[in-house]
Amino acid sequence: MTRYVYAFEEGDGQNRQLLGGKGAGLAEMSKIGLPVPPGFTITTEACNAYQSLGRLPDGLMEQVWDKLAQLEAKLGKKLGDPERPLLVSVRSGAPISMPGMMDTVLNLGLNPETTEGLARLTQNRRFALDSYRRFIQMFGNVVLHMEHSRFEHLLDRLKQAHNIHEDTQLTEEHLTELIRQYKELVVNETGKPFPDDAKEQLTLAIVAVFDSWKNPRAVVYRRLNKISEDLGTAVNVQSMVFGNMGDTSATGVLFTRNPNTGEPGMYGEYLTNAQGEDVVAGIRTPKPIQEMAREMPQTYRQLTDVCQLLESHYRDMQDIEFTVEDTTLYILQTRSGKRTARAAVKIAVDMVHEGVISKEDALLRMDAEQVQRLLYRQVDPNASLTVLAQGLPASPGAASGKVVFSADEAEVRGNAGEAVILVRPETTPDDIHGIVAAQGVLTSRGGMTSHAAIVARGMGKPAVTGCEAVKISLEGEYFQVGDEQVQKDTVITIDGGTGRVMLGLVPTVEPALSPEFTELLAWADEFRRLAVEANADTPEDAAKAREFGATGIGLCRTEHMFMGQDRLPAMQAMILAETLEDREKALAQLLPMQENDFYGILKAMDGYSVTIRLLDPPLHEFLPDIDDTEKALAAARDRQDWADITRLEAVLRRTRTLFEFNPMLGFRGVRLGIVYPEIYAMQARAIFQAQARLLQEGYHPHVEVMIPLVGTRAELAKMKALVAEVNQKVSQERRIALPYKIGTMIEVPRAALLAGQIAEDAEFFSFGTNDLTQTTFGYSRDDAEGKFLPTYLAEKILTENPFMVLDRDGVGRLIRWAVEEGRATRPDLVLGICGEHGGDPSSIEFCHLAGLNYVSCSPFRVPVARLAAAQAALRHQS
Amino acid sequence: MTRYVYAFEEGDGQNRQLLGGKGAGLAEMSKIGLPVPPGFTITTEACNAYQSLGRLPDGLMEQVWDKLAQLEAKLGKKLGDPERPLLVSVRSGAPISMPGMMDTVLNLGLNPETTEGLARLTQNRRFALDSYRRFIQMFGNVVLHMEHSRFEHLLDRLKQAHNIHEDTQLTEEHLTELIRQYKELVVNETGKPFPDDAKEQLTLAIVAVFDSWKNPRAVVYRRLNKISEDLGTAVNVQSMVFGNMGDTSATGVLFTRNPNTGEPGMYGEYLTNAQGEDVVAGIRTPKPIQEMAREMPQTYRQLTDVCQLLESHYRDMQDIEFTVEDTTLYILQTRSGKRTARAAVKIAVDMVHEGVISKEDALLRMDAEQVQRLLYRQVDPNASLTVLAQGLPASPGAASGKVVFSADEAEVRGNAGEAVILVRPETTPDDIHGIVAAQGVLTSRGGMTSHAAIVARGMGKPAVTGCEAVKISLEGEYFQVGDEQVQKDTVITIDGGTGRVMLGLVPTVEPALSPEFTELLAWADEFRRLAVEANADTPEDAAKAREFGATGIGLCRTEHMFMGQDRLPAMQAMILAETLEDREKALAQLLPMQENDFYGILKAMDGYSVTIRLLDPPLHEFLPDIDDTEKALAAARDRQDWADITRLEAVLRRTRTLFEFNPMLGFRGVRLGIVYPEIYAMQARAIFQAQARLLQEGYHPHVEVMIPLVGTRAELAKMKALVAEVNQKVSQERRIALPYKIGTMIEVPRAALLAGQIAEDAEFFSFGTNDLTQTTFGYSRDDAEGKFLPTYLAEKILTENPFMVLDRDGVGRLIRWAVEEGRATRPDLVLGICGEHGGDPSSIEFCHLAGLNYVSCSPFRVPVARLAAAQAALRHQS
Repeated sequence: MTRYVYAFEEGDGQNRQLLGGKGAGLAEMSKIGLPVPPGFTITTEACNAYQSLGRLPDGLMEQVWDKLAQLEAKLGKKLGDPERPLLVSVRSGAPISMPGMMDTVLNLGLNPETTEGLARLTQNRRFALDSYRRFIQMFGNVVLHMEHSRFEHLLDRLKQAHNIHEDTQLTEEHLTELIRQYKELVVNETGKPFPDDAKEQLTLAIVAVFDSWKNPRAVVYRRLNKISEDLGTAVNVQSMVFGNMGDTSATGVLFTRNPNTGEPGMYGEYLTNAQGEDVVAGIRTPKPIQEMAREMPQTYRQLTDVCQLLESHYRDMQDIEFTVEDTTLYILQTRSGKRTARAAVKIAVDMVHEGVISKEDALLRMDAEQVQRLLYRQVDPNASLTVLAQGLPASPGAASGKVVFSADEAEVRGNAGEAVILVRPETTPDDIHGIVAAQGVLTSRGGMTSHAAIVARGMGKPAVTGCEAVKISLEGEYFQVGDEQVQKDTVITIDGGTGRVMLGLVPTVEPALSPEFTELLAWADEFRRLAVEANADTPEDAAKAREFGATGIGLCRTEHMFMGQDRLPAMQAMILAETLEDREKALAQLLPMQENDFYGILKAMDGYSVTIRLLDPPLHEFLPDIDDTEKALAAARDRQDWADITRLEAVLRRTRTLFEFNPMLGFRGVRLGIVYPEIYAMQARAIFQAQARLLQEGYHPHVEVMIPLVGTRAELAKMKALVAEVNQKVSQERRIALPYKIGTMIEVPRAALLAGQIAEDAEFFSFGTNDLTQTTFGYSRDDAEGKFLPTYLAEKILTENPFMVLDRDGVGRLIRWAVEEGRATRPDLVLGICGEHGGDPSSIEFCHLAGLNYVSCSPFRVPVARLAAAQAALRHQS
Repeated sequence: MTRYVYAFEEGDGQNRQLLGGKGAGLAEMSKIGLPVPPGFTITTEACNAYQSLGRLPDGLMEQVWDKLAQLEAKLGKKLGDPERPLLVSVRSGAPISMPGMMDTVLNLGLNPETTEGLARLTQNRRFALDSYRRFIQMFGNVVLHMEHSRFEHLLDRLKQAHNIHEDTQLTEEHLTELIRQYKELVVNETGKPFPDDAKEQLTLAIVAVFDSWKNPRAVVYRRLNKISEDLGTAVNVQSMVFGNMGDTSATGVLFTRNPNTGEPGMYGEYLTNAQGEDVVAGIRTPKPIQEMAREMPQTYRQLTDVCQLLESHYRDMQDIEFTVEDTTLYILQTRSGKRTARAAVKIAVDMVHEGVISKEDALLRMDAEQVQRLLYRQVDPNASLTVLAQGLPASPGAASGKVVFSADEAEVRGNAGEAVILVRPETTPDDIHGIVAAQGVLTSRGGMTSHAAIVARGMGKPAVTGCEAVKISLEGEYFQVGDEQVQKDTVITIDGGTGRVMLGLVPTVEPALSPEFTELLAWADEFRRLAVEANADTPEDAAKAREFGATGIGLCRTEHMFMGQDRLPAMQAMILAETLEDREKALAQLLPMQENDFYGILKAMDGYSVTIRLLDPPLHEFLPDIDDTEKALAAARDRQDWADITRLEAVLRRTRTLFEFNPMLGFRGVRLGIVYPEIYAMQARAIFQAQARLLQEGYHPHVEVMIPLVGTRAELAKMKALVAEVNQKVSQERRIALPYKIGTMIEVPRAALLAGQIAEDAEFFSFGTNDLTQTTFGYSRDDAEGKFLPTYLAEKILTENPFMVLDRDGVGRLIRWAVEEGRATRPDLVLGICGEHGGDPSSIEFCHLAGLNYVSCSPFRVPVARLAAAQAALRHQS
C-alpha cells in the first residue's frame, strides 16, 4: 500500500518532490521545533494517482482519516464536533512554487453547530459567524466552482440595504442573514444544499485542490515557466489558528532582515485581533513589528528566537507569516525572502562574517543580473521626489527630459541636443527613430516584453512600460495621472530600475561600489577562472574599467578616434584621396593623433594588456550624408562657388561609390586592410610609436593588435606580415624592442569553422559575438530589433533576444568548435569574447563552460562579469 | 645522385609530372615506334632544383653531356663538329601545356664552322646561312634577352637597301652580311661576342628555358589557368630536322579530327620549305593538310597511318607537329588536341561508337564548363545580315561589341563593362589581358592554330582568325573591307562558329542539343546519382527545363509573380494595409492570380515535383523608390491633389518604416510569415487550389512547399502548422486529398548548425548556397563583387569567387554537418541545393560527395549539371 499521507512531524523536510514546497517547509519547521499548527500533508503521488485514475486512489481517504484522528487526539479537538470543533485549512503546495495559481480553503469544518461551538470557545459569536460566512464563500468558489462575484453581490446588497460601508460594521444579525442568503444561492446554483458534514467538506476540498493542478491558469503558468505537468501538487491539511480572538491575538508577516537595505534585525508588520488576509488586503494599517516589543514582549522575544533559529537553519534571510492565538505564537510559513540588490549583497556578506554561510554560498546566492542594477545611474536616494505613477521596470537606469508625444518630434528635438522622454500609449517599429533620440521611454500599455521594453533594453535606454495610471491624450499633447495634468515639454524623470515616474528633474547619482559589494567581488576573484577585461576606447573609460576591477582592455576600438571634430577632416581627406600618395598624405596627418590616443590608453592601463582593433567600420560612415551633400552642392551651384562645387562633387562621387546595400556585410574590417594596407600600416605605426614612447618613459605597455572580420587565414597572414614589418621599422627607428601579440576577431561563421587554420597565424581569438550572432542567424540587429524580434520573443519563437543572451545552440556551437580547433592548432591560444554578451551572466557561464580565457565587457558591467564568472566556476566545479 | 636526364626512349611516357607533357609525349612516341627525331629530356625536378638553388644543380650538366654523347653516337653527328655538325632544338615542356608562354631555341649548335659544315652536308649553303641567322636572332632574343625588333630592324633595312620584299629573296651574300650585322648587334648590346662554342650555347639555352618558367606572361598564364607554380618545366633537347631544305621538305601541324566540329579525318595545315615557327607565327598562310595528298602523297599516307596509330594508342584526338625533311617524315610533338565543345562531344561519342573508349571515358573526358558553351546563344539563322567578311571559324559562339584595336584599350573598356571586340592583325601572348576583357577576337592573319585561335578557344570566347579581307590600320584606328571603312567604336558581330564578320548588332538565338550531346547526356543519366532539377518561376522556364532533362523544379520563387504590372498594385495595397482586414482584402485580390501561376507551373511539370518557396524578399522591394515617391508627393502638393497626397504620404510612411540598414539580413523570408501569417496562408491556399484543380482535371501535380530563411525549429513548426491548416481547409472545400511535402531552405549558418532539430519538422532541406555563402563569409554579394572581391582574387586571398564555386572549407563544412545531423534525425530527409552553385561543376561534385539527393540550377545549366553529376559519380566510385 502506497503511503500517501504524512503528519508534518513525520515528513522529510528535504523531499519537496513528494511533499511539495509548502509541505516540506512545514515538515522541516515541525522537525526543528518551531511552533507550527499541526497537520498533515497528502503527497504529490496521491495527486498524480488522482490525475491518472480520474478518482481518488484506493486507501487515500482511509489514511487521511487515520492522520486526522491522530491530529484530533493531539489537539483535543474534533472535526465537526460542536463542543470542541477542529477547523482546518486545506492548501495546495507544488514542488515548485506557483504563487496564487492553485486553490486554498480556510476554516473548513464549520457548519451551523460547530459555528456555535466556535462562538462559545472563543466567546466571540460575531467572529464565528463571520468565519462561517467566509468559509461558505470560499468553499463555494473553490470547491463548488461558483462565481466569486455572486457572493460579493449579496454582500454588497446587504450593506447597501443597511447603509453599511465596512465589512467590520456587519452585526451578528447581518451575518446570520447573509449566511442564509449564501446557502440559498448555493442551492440555486448547484442544485444541492451546502454540505454540513465536515468529513464530506474535507473530501471535496482535497479533490478540488487536486483539480486545481489542471486549471487553465495553472497550466499556462507551468508552460510559461517550463514546469513539468507531471510534478503534481501536494495538499496540506493544517489546523486553523486564529489571530482574531481578541487583543491577545495577532497576525503578521516579517523578514528576518531588512529586505531593502540588508540591515540586520527583524523587519515586518502585524495587526492585533486580525486574520492574515486582513494584513494582505490592506484594510487596516498594520503596525511595525518593533511595536510588538512593547505590546507583547513575551511573544516578541519568542519571535526573535524563531528568526535566529530559522536563519541558522535555512542559512538565509527568511520571509515569515505568523499568528498569535491568545498569546500562543504559531509560525504558518517561512521562505527565502525577496530582497533588493543592495540588500542581497549586504545580507550575503554579513552572513559570511557571521559564519552562517560560506563565501561560495554568498556568491552563488547573488542574482548577477539583479546586482547589475547597482551599477546604473540611479535616482539620488536623498532626493525629494514627487512620484507621479508606478509602471513596470522595463529597462533600468534613470533619465530625465521634456515630455514629447511623437517619435518624429523626439527625433528632431533629441538630435538637436534636447533631452526628451518619449511618451506613447505603446511603441511600434515606426517609433524606433524617436526612441533612439530620446533619453528614455514611458508607455502606458505593454509589459516587460513589449516592443518598447525590448527595444529600450536593447539600446540600454531607461524605460518604464505598462504605466496604466498614465492616461495619454495624443491630440491634447498631455497626459493625466489622477488629477495631475502633465503638458508636453514638462520635465519628468523616469526610473527604469523601479518603474517610478517622477515630476521634474530628479538628481541622479553615479553608482559606486559599496564596501560589501567590493568585498563580495574580491571573493568572486578568488573563485573565478575567467579573466574579466573591459571594452574601452578612451583613457577615461579605461580608468573606470580599472576601478571596477578589469585586468585589461579586451577591445579598444579605433574608429571613434577618427570621429572627433579635429580628426574628421583628415579622415575624410584620406577617404577621398584618389591616389596612394594623397591617401598617405592624409594618413600622415592622422598618425600623430592616433599615436596620442594609443599613448593615453596604454598609459591608463599600464601593466595590463590592451587589445587594439584596427579600423573596422565601412569608410562611408565617416562621410557626410548623401542628401546633405546634394543639398550643399545645389547651394554651391546657386552661388557659383566653383571650389566648393568641385569639392562637393568629389565627396558625392566617393560617397556614392562607397554606398553599400548591406554595409554590415560589406567593405569593412580586414577587407579595408587588404585593399588599403596603408591605413592599417599607419595604425600599426601609431601603436608602436606610442609603445616606444611609453617604454622609454618607464611604463609597461602590453600591446595586442587585433585584426577584425577575418574569414580566411590568408587575410590574417597578410595583415600579420604588414604589422610585423611596421613593428620592425619603428623598433629600428626608436632603437627599442617592441614586443606585441597579434590575433583576430572571430565574428563570421567561416572564421569559426576554419579556426584551426586561422590559429596558425593568431596568438589570440576574440569572439565578436555581436556580429557572429548577426551572421549566424542572418539577422541585422538594427533591423531585427525594430521589426520582427519583438514578435519572435512574444510568440516564443525565441526565448531570449540573442543579442543580449548568447545563443548557445547555434552561435555557441560555432564558438565551441572554434575553441577546439584553435587549441588543437595552438595549445596556448588565448580565447576571449568581446561582444555585448561579455557582460551577460548566462553568456559568461557559457564562456566558462566553453573554456575561454577571458570575457571583455563595458566598464559598467565589469563587476557583474566578475560575479557571474565566479558563479559559473562554482556551479560547474569538476 | 638524382637522375635529371632521360633519353626519349628511356623515359616513362606516363610521367608528365617529371618529363613534362612534351617530354612524356616524345618518350611515348619513341616507345611506340613513331619517327621521332632522337634527343633527351631534362626533368622538371632539375628545373625546380634550379629555381630553388638559383643555379644549375650539381651533376646536371655532366648528365647532359653524357646523354649528348649517346645521341651523337647514335646519329653519327657531333655538336660543334664542323664536319658532321649536330644541331638541336631546346624546348620547354611543362606538365600542363602552356602554349607559347615559354621559350624555345632552334638550330642550336651553329657557328661559322658548323654552318659551313651544314652547307656541305645539305648541299644548300643558303639554307645553312639562313638557319644560322635565324639561330642568332632566336638565341639573341631568348637567351641573351635582346629585343626581337632590333634584329627585325636590321633585316628590314637590308631588304629595303636591296629592294627586297620576301625573306626568300635574300641571297647568300645578303645573309652573310646580315649575320655580320647581327653579331655586331650582339656585341653592342650585351658587351660580349655571340658564343661560338656549341656546348656553351646549350648550357645557356637550358638556363634560359628554366628562366622562362618565371617570365611574367607565363606567371600570368598560370594564374589565369590555375596552374601551380611548383610544377616547373622540363627541357627537351632534340636533334633538329629541317622542313626548310627545299620543296621536298615541309612542316605542319594537324589534328587527327576536326577540332571545331569533331568530324573524323585529319585537319591541319602545312608549309613547304619552312620551319615550324613560320606556321605558328602566321606570317605565311599555310595550306590545308588535304593538299598534301596531291603534293606529297607518300608522306600524306604515312601521316594518315601515324594519326591512326596515335589515336588508338592515346585513345584521344591528337594535335601533332611534324616536319618532313627531304621526304622523311618526323613527328615532333603529339598531345591531346584542344577542341571546341561541339567537337569534344562529337569526338567522344564517335570514339565510343568506334569502340576506342568507354562511355565512362567519354563522360570523364568532357570539360563540363566548356560543354556549357554549346548552350550559349548563336546568330539567329533568320536574321538579315550584312556580312562584311569571312575568316576562319576559330572559336565558336557569337559576340557583338565595339571595335577596338589594342589589348590595353580592350582591357580598360571591357572591364568598365563595355562590350568590345578586339581586332588585331594577329595576337601574341602580350595581348592576353585584352582578350580576357573583350567579347571576342578578330584577326586578319593566322590560322586555326594561331595564338588568337588557341587562346580564344581556351577561354570560350568567340574568335574569327585569318580574315585576310580585313585590312587593319592600327595608326588610323580603322579597318577596311573592300570599300567599307569600319572605324573604331563601330559595333560589329562575329560568329566564331562560321567565321563570319557582320556589321552591327546581330540578333542571336538559343541553341538546341545536338544528337551527340543528347546521347552523351543519356549516358550521363546512367551513371549519375544526383538528380538534376531546375530553378524556374514560369511555365515557359519549366518547359525549357524539362526539354533539357530536368526532373523537377527545385526552386520556384513566388516573388517574381508579384512584380507584374497587373499584380503590383494589389501587392502594394497589401503592404500598405494598416489593418489585418485591409491586408486580407488585398491578399484576396492576389489569390486568383497566384493560383493561376501555380496552376501553370504545376501543369508544365506534370508528374514531377515542384518546390514552391513562399514569399522571401523584403516587402520594400515591391514599393516604389523613396526619392521617386518624394518627388511625386511634391508634385501632388503643387497641384493640390489631396487624394494623391494622402495616398503618397501613406506610401512614403510605409516605405520609410520598411527601410532597412541591411535588407539581406532583415525582415524577409519566414520572418514575414511569422509576422504576417496571412500572406503565407494566401500563398498556401493558392497552391492547394491549383493542385485541386489539376487533380480534378486528371493531372499529377507533386507539390512541395518550402519555407525560406528558417533559423530555428519553432519558425518552421509554426509555418508548417499554418500550411497544414490551409491544406485541410482547401481539401475539405474541394473534397479531395491534397498530398504535399513541406521543407525548408538551409541558408543561414544557424539552420545548418541546428539541422538536427529542424529536420524534425522538415521533409526536405534545400541548401540556399547564395545566402549561406553570404552569411558564412559575412559578405554581401552585391557589395563584395564591386568592392573587395576583385582584390581578394587578384591577391589570392581567395582562389575562387565563392559565389560561383562553392567554398568547400567553410560553407561546405556547414552543409556536411547539416546533412549528417538532418539524416540522423530523419533518415529519409531529401537534400538538395538550389543556389547558383547548383550549375557549377566543382560545386556539383561537392554535392555528390556530401551525399545530397539533387541539385537545382537554371534551365540552361541543366545539361552541364547532368554531365557534372555523372563525372562526380564516376570520379568517386566507392
